[in-house]
Amino acid sequence: MAFRPLHDRVLVRRIEAEEKTAGGIIIPDSAQEKPSEGEVIAVGTGTRSETGTVTPCDVKAGDRVLFGKWSGTEVKVDGEDLLIMKESDIMGVIG
Amino acid sequence: MAFRPLHDRVLVRRIEAEEKTAGGIIIPDSAQEKPSEGEVIAVGTGTRSETGTVTPCDVKAGDRVLFGKWSGTEVKVDGEDLLIMKESDIMGVIG
Amino acid sequence: MAFRPLHDRVLVRRIEAEEKTAGGIIIPDSAQEKPSEGEVIAVGTGTRSETGTVTPCDVKAGDRVLFGKWSGTEVKVDGEDLLIMKESDIMGVIG
Amino acid sequence: MAFRPLHDRVLVRRIEAEEKTAGGIIIPDSAQEKPSEGEVIAVGTGTRSETGTVTPCDVKAGDRVLFGKWSGTEVKVDGEDLLIMKESDIMGVIG
Amino acid sequence: MAFRPLHDRVLVRRIEAEEKTAGGIIIPDSAQEKPSEGEVIAVGTGTRSETGTVTPCDVKAGDRVLFGKWSGTEVKVDGEDLLIMKESDIMGVIG
Amino acid sequence: MAFRPLHDRVLVRRIEAEEKTAGGIIIPDSAQEKPSEGEVIAVGTGTRSETGTVTPCDVKAGDRVLFGKWSGTEVKVDGEDLLIMKESDIMGVIG
Amino acid sequence: MAFRPLHDRVLVRRIEAEEKTAGGIIIPDSAQEKPSEGEVIAVGTGTRSETGTVTPCDVKAGDRVLFGKWSGTEVKVDGEDLLIMKESDIMGVIG
Repeated sequence: MAFRPLHDRVLVRRIEAEEKTAGGIIIPDSAQEKPSEGEVIAVGTGTRSETGTVTPCDVKAGDRVLFGKWSGTEVKVDGEDLLIMKESDIMGVIG
Repeated sequence: MAFRPLHDRVLVRRIEAEEKTAGGIIIPDSAQEKPSEGEVIAVGTGTRSETGTVTPCDVKAGDRVLFGKWSGTEVKVDGEDLLIMKESDIMGVIG
Repeated sequence: MAFRPLHDRVLVRRIEAEEKTAGGIIIPDSAQEKPSEGEVIAVGTGTRSETGTVTPCDVKAGDRVLFGKWSGTEVKVDGEDLLIMKESDIMGVIG
Repeated sequence: MAFRPLHDRVLVRRIEAEEKTAGGIIIPDSAQEKPSEGEVIAVGTGTRSETGTVTPCDVKAGDRVLFGKWSGTEVKVDGEDLLIMKESDIMGVIG
Repeated sequence: MAFRPLHDRVLVRRIEAEEKTAGGIIIPDSAQEKPSEGEVIAVGTGTRSETGTVTPCDVKAGDRVLFGKWSGTEVKVDGEDLLIMKESDIMGVIG
Repeated sequence: MAFRPLHDRVLVRRIEAEEKTAGGIIIPDSAQEKPSEGEVIAVGTGTRSETGTVTPCDVKAGDRVLFGKWSGTEVKVDGEDLLIMKESDIMGVIG
Repeated sequence: MAFRPLHDRVLVRRIEAEEKTAGGIIIPDSAQEKPSEGEVIAVGTGTRSETGTVTPCDVKAGDRVLFGKWSGTEVKVDGEDLLIMKESDIMGVIG
């Protein structure tokens, strides 16, 4: 059951701390303000200028990304807890 | 008795939690900040730039959408409680 | 005695709740945040861009419209209480 | 002794409530938030865009206008109390 | 010892109340919010757009101007107390 | 394990006070509001305009830079504590 | 050991009150809100528009300038206390 984010929004699956030791980024204490890590599931068409020009997002499905700890809104898609956020909440792509 | 939203506004019928189990998205506890789900009833012509260029909305009547829990204003149209919101309140389209 | 709203302003006559049952939109309890209904009396020339381009309003005299409960400023024209508001305060056109 | 308002400013003479009954607009109780009425005395050259394009004001000397009750700054010109305000403070032109 | 204001700034000499009775504008009680009067001493090159276009100021040295009571910053130039302000603080030119 | 900052973000390694005496910039007391020093590790593609035009950053990997004391967000990359910040947080390049 | 300010930033050496009596501008009591004086040491490339157009600063190394009392951030370059500020903090050039 697909979910198409609108415009410059991105659907992200959060990656918990343990899982990451293999991936290389260690964020030991989630209580800190450290950014969270996740995997991009789906990406909107991109930002639209005032005159309708669409600029695609700079991340794609499958990218591992870092985003602000409090970014995004929780939603369930097909019973799974995911996050919807703006591309501007994403700091960078890992790997 | 039609209702034409102005510019980038969208008329939405809220879909309550139970109804959604068949549709695939489960938002069990509406007390949480989880986004709400609804069906698009009518869409405005779109956003207008400063010089009058109109950019159509990215959703259409019939789309099932997710929007921020506190988005939109309640209104009755033909005796039915509906919501008027901006397209920017909508996070994405389901299915 | 005419009144010409300036730029993107709109002159509106408020339609009280009872009158609306015939017209189709019922807003029983004005204490709630429900939008108000009214009839457009006069419309300004439209919004002006920074370089002077004028974009006409999307409503016209005679339209029945919904607007935010607290929108607009009260004024008397020819002894009648009317409202002056911005076009952006109007949510949509009924019928 | 002339006074040339700068850019999109307008010099206005306030018209007190009594005087207006002949003119058609009655604003009996100035304590309310009702807009004030006045006559335009002088108008600036208009708004300037970022690149210097000048867009003339939409009101001219002699127009009777309605403006927000708290708009403008009081000044004396040739011993007379007048108001300097922005064109955007003016809601519309009467007659 | 010259002083060149930067961009859209203007150097102004304040004209005290008494001096003005001859000049025509009487602002008897400086305690009120009435605008202040002054003479333009020097003007910057003007506002610069995002792409570098320069739009000259609409006032020139020698102009008698009205400006907001709290506008500008005091500075001493050659031992004289003057005011540096933005052109947008100036309401209009007298005479 | 690379990390690609998004758009106009920059990945920076903080340089502690002692290390800097050799480099020439002494910021003895980090309690003060003095800017911090660091080395640029990776740079995003640059800022994107509303219509998609990309303007590269003005710093590159290897530059020693000064940035606001509270700028950026801490993150661990390959076990090392680094900072992700916006290019606009960087005041200048040393040497 | 050079320091290159980024974009529209300017590196300034503060000129204390006494030193200025010879230079002509007397700011006797630094407790007041009076602007501060200083000498420009280095200037960034200038402001960048959204589409990358660079507009050079209007001040150059060696200029004596007036700037807001609280403008800029203190930094040590080669052991000397200097100020980094935005060009927009500078009110004008003396002499």
